[in-house]
Amino acid sequence: MAPIDDFPIRLGRILRKARTSKGLSQEKLAELAGLHRTYIGMVERGEKNISLINYVRISLALDTPPQEFIAELYNNASTTTHIT
Amino acid sequence: MAPIDDFPIRLGRILRKARTSKGLSQEKLAELAGLHRTYIGMVERGEKNISLINYVRISLALDTPPQEFIAELYNNASTTTHIT
Repeated sequence: MAPIDDFPIRLGRILRKARTSKGLSQEKLAELAGLHRTYIGMVERGEKNISLINYVRISLALDTPPQEFIAELYNNASTTTHIT
Repeated sequence: MAPIDDFPIRLGRILRKARTSKGLSQEKLAELAGLHRTYIGMVERGEKNISLINYVRISLALDTPPQEFIAELYNNASTTTHIT
C-alpha cells in the first residue's frame, strides 16, 4: 500500500485530536470553518475526499498553519511502519 | 477577499513553477503522479478544486514534501499584500 492511500483516515484522526484538544465541538469547528458539521464528521472519519481549500479552512479554524498537519501526516507516513 | 479565496490560482502558479523548474512536461508529471494531463493543466490554471490527496500525489511526483508548497502559499498569503 502506498503511504498516501490511508491519508484520509490518518488526517481525520489528526484533525479530530486537534479539535478535541482545543475543546471544540464539531458544530463549533464547522461554524468557525464555514462548513457543515456533517462534513467535519465525515472528514474526521476519513470518509470524505477533502478538498485542499476545505482542509485549509479547517486548519485555520483550528488556529494552525495548514502546513503543520500535512507535515505531521507526511513525516509519519515516511518514517513509521504502516499499521493495518 | 479572504486570503484563501485565491488559493487555487496561486497554488497553480507555484506548482507550475516547480514543474517547469524540474524540466517536466505536464504529461510527464501526470504520469508520475498517476493523474491525467488535463487535470494537471486545470490545477495549474487554478480551475480545479484540487483534493488534498491529489495535491499530495502531485507534490510527491515533484519530489517535494507536501507541506512545502502549502507553507509557501500560506506564508505568502499571511505576509504580502493581495495582488489583483
